[in-house]
Amino acid sequence: MTTVKNKKLYEQLADDVERQIRRGVFRHGDRLQSVRETSAQRKLSITTVVRAYLLLESRGLIESRPQSGFFVNLQGRDAAPEAPVARPARPPVTSAVDVSRLVLSTLRSISVDDAVPLGSPYPDTAAFPSAKLNRYACAAGRDESVRGLRNALPPGHPKLIRQIARRYLDKGLAVDPGEIIVTVGATEAINLCLQAVARPGDVVAVESPTFYAMLHAIERMGMRAVEVPTDPQQGIEVDALAAIARTQPIAACMVMPNFQNPLGFQMPDARKQALVEFAARAGIPIVENGVYNELHYGARFPTTLKSFDRQGLVLHCASFSKTLTAAYRIGWALPGRYRDQVEKLKFLNTLTTPPIPQLALAEFLEREGYEHHLRRVRKSYAQQASLMRNVVLRFFPAGTKVSEPAGGYVLWVELPPQVDAMVLYQLALERGITIGPGHMFSCAGDYRHFIRLNYSMAWTKDIERAVIMVGKLAADCAR
Amino acid sequence: MTTVKNKKLYEQLADDVERQIRRGVFRHGDRLQSVRETSAQRKLSITTVVRAYLLLESRGLIESRPQSGFFVNLQGRDAAPEAPVARPARPPVTSAVDVSRLVLSTLRSISVDDAVPLGSPYPDTAAFPSAKLNRYACAAGRDESVRGLRNALPPGHPKLIRQIARRYLDKGLAVDPGEIIVTVGATEAINLCLQAVARPGDVVAVESPTFYAMLHAIERMGMRAVEVPTDPQQGIEVDALAAIARTQPIAACMVMPNFQNPLGFQMPDARKQALVEFAARAGIPIVENGVYNELHYGARFPTTLKSFDRQGLVLHCASFSKTLTAAYRIGWALPGRYRDQVEKLKFLNTLTTPPIPQLALAEFLEREGYEHHLRRVRKSYAQQASLMRNVVLRFFPAGTKVSEPAGGYVLWVELPPQVDAMVLYQLALERGITIGPGHMFSCAGDYRHFIRLNYSMAWTKDIERAVIMVGKLAADCAR
Repeated sequence: MTTVKNKKLYEQLADDVERQIRRGVFRHGDRLQSVRETSAQRKLSITTVVRAYLLLESRGLIESRPQSGFFVNLQGRDAAPEAPVARPARPPVTSAVDVSRLVLSTLRSISVDDAVPLGSPYPDTAAFPSAKLNRYACAAGRDESVRGLRNALPPGHPKLIRQIARRYLDKGLAVDPGEIIVTVGATEAINLCLQAVARPGDVVAVESPTFYAMLHAIERMGMRAVEVPTDPQQGIEVDALAAIARTQPIAACMVMPNFQNPLGFQMPDARKQALVEFAARAGIPIVENGVYNELHYGARFPTTLKSFDRQGLVLHCASFSKTLTAAYRIGWALPGRYRDQVEKLKFLNTLTTPPIPQLALAEFLEREGYEHHLRRVRKSYAQQASLMRNVVLRFFPAGTKVSEPAGGYVLWVELPPQVDAMVLYQLALERGITIGPGHMFSCAGDYRHFIRLNYSMAWTKDIERAVIMVGKLAADCAR
Repeated sequence: MTTVKNKKLYEQLADDVERQIRRGVFRHGDRLQSVRETSAQRKLSITTVVRAYLLLESRGLIESRPQSGFFVNLQGRDAAPEAPVARPARPPVTSAVDVSRLVLSTLRSISVDDAVPLGSPYPDTAAFPSAKLNRYACAAGRDESVRGLRNALPPGHPKLIRQIARRYLDKGLAVDPGEIIVTVGATEAINLCLQAVARPGDVVAVESPTFYAMLHAIERMGMRAVEVPTDPQQGIEVDALAAIARTQPIAACMVMPNFQNPLGFQMPDARKQALVEFAARAGIPIVENGVYNELHYGARFPTTLKSFDRQGLVLHCASFSKTLTAAYRIGWALPGRYRDQVEKLKFLNTLTTPPIPQLALAEFLEREGYEHHLRRVRKSYAQQASLMRNVVLRFFPAGTKVSEPAGGYVLWVELPPQVDAMVLYQLALERGITIGPGHMFSCAGDYRHFIRLNYSMAWTKDIERAVIMVGKLAADCAR
């Protein structure tokens, strides 16, 4: 826990360093002393130094480079023009602003080639059928019909739309192909669906913890998030949502009912039904994020909220980014009664989704063994989940708790309360390991002693060592 | 001109047909009588019948299918659920809503395989080096570095960013590669830049006529457009803009200073400089759309507003969609002092721009003769502009005026004032020809007797006959 004394110390240190930067002692691009050097020299704890450096980073004065340390960043400052006269330049600031800044910064750290990406939100690309897909993409690129945008205008390429509808049908969900809108990844789908049902200033209910892309969508539209208590095994508490809705108007609800990121649960059918029924009674549209649905460890494809929806109030979003390729950026929305608005917003936002990857995926789905590929991936992920859980339970400090995912590829780890996940993040980064700090999953400031770990990589000694190292660093922080 | 009698007649006819549809005389999917049949049977003019049908289309009761006629559209009506209790489902309606609906509908009509696409906003894909690009895309797809998203996170692929910066440098504009943000086409770039500088409800100044993508961006954000008088040869009137800015706060200004769509002018340098200087004095950011810059007919690459900007107030946007490939959807922004906001908004909007097409374009730019390709395209477009202008001047009704573009690939044609461009659009569509009705270029209801014609296709007898046919139909409408 942060004591008042500690707090003063890290702020003092930050102010000290800021003064040195402003006096020109450090110049743009200079490397600051390492956390350990400063800690030793100033007789301050590692935690205090990391907090000071993070504060300076949030002030925009320094930047952290993975495995290299902190560097002075005065880019554009000397030449900074005066503020425009007419109006402030920044977009509306909401409570979620810090989340997206943090997420972008942690995602960047994943770009370091030899870092162990336990913090990555992406599946390991080794599991993707990249070579096969590329052959279809090459063939699609030679297809005259996708040279222009004729077959790419919203709602999307007819062949891909047919394949997506057929896939749902195979899984027991009758989908009207005419409802499907192809998007630039699920990210765009979620953004467009939210924009179709809520306006700037509106309140949107989300799970707690929440997958940060949901918070981003809310932030981007200038809306506000209200975090609803969420059972780690069963999902969002419908009664709690109803209670919140009695105290304030809720414009929409965003949930990930299957293999939620970061919790990994699968909502039981009864609770899915109860949620959809409540939404119908209250007239609250639900944006359903189904990007992990195909990665179930159980025998059956999970039910969707969409399958319980009789009112067209569920806007279901998904993508191929978790199962086939993240690089193609192909997602889709099934927006229910909001279909026409979402199609129009898609057109306004990015005009069209690139047609060549759409056609390539359609051909792959038609001809290749998608189901066979998925079975193999699901089996690996289930095994890797178990392996990583065991290491965490064995090597992390006493009091650590860990999720037991029903699908997907991330673990949610609760550390002892005195561990600050951002400090742990920086310490791990110095060792060439990324983790997902819990701070990203709430805009209310919760989960600061939680981390998310990605287990999509094939299990190796290096991975094992990295997880053990995170456990050791966490134990250091807990002391 | 519309007489009161005419107006009543087309409304009467629309009401008649609506009653028949509601009584079940026509059912979903039924084809209505053709315009000519109805005209003959009811002894009404073609214009009256087309107007009635367009009114029914705007009521959502029928839809027009190119080369087939009008069909009853009751999709989802029978099963239409009641409105949600909590809030209206539609996004904020602005004066520009009709523009995007019209544009999407006219763009769809271009998808008809054998239509002559005089209404297309896209360059003819025959001019694209598609096969070469596809070879680079295939190679890029085999590159491990772009299988995941590591090299694709905003601001974009470093190799492409370097090539874009080098291209500007070659053209005399020193660009900091660190300023460039790669986007999903210029459409996304324009949206993000506008969002970085203005908020819902703000007023944004645009040229008149305006390229409709600008109006879309404004509409999407719930902003309002004010149309500034624009000289067909010299561009936006800076004095008029200043006068408007004295009467109301202007949050931003969106312009296309080179080869403006639809007017085709190149703003003289003195006026560009005056505009940037005014913007700096008033503190008004300028979103500069430079997508046609590479398609200059003059000897030199045109200057940009960005090159006159000392304050970082110009947000310059461009893409490869007009010169190399529309299918890859790769554009970029140079957002000046708003760079960090635009990068963050990019991340929130679509996470990343697909990396494979970025790498493919980077390799093409590095190794292939982009400049050679452009020289050939510019020469063809300049010749085709001259050929189409001559046919318009010879075969269109007396009083027709036509632009003389300095670059790009569209003509702007002013027809006699009694011609309604939407009626002409429908009549041309029945003959398998699309045109761009002037209605799309204004949300203030101007340019209803203007049309835009695309001359990017290689000149053939078919194209010539289609242009002559549009002229004949215009003459019919003018009578």
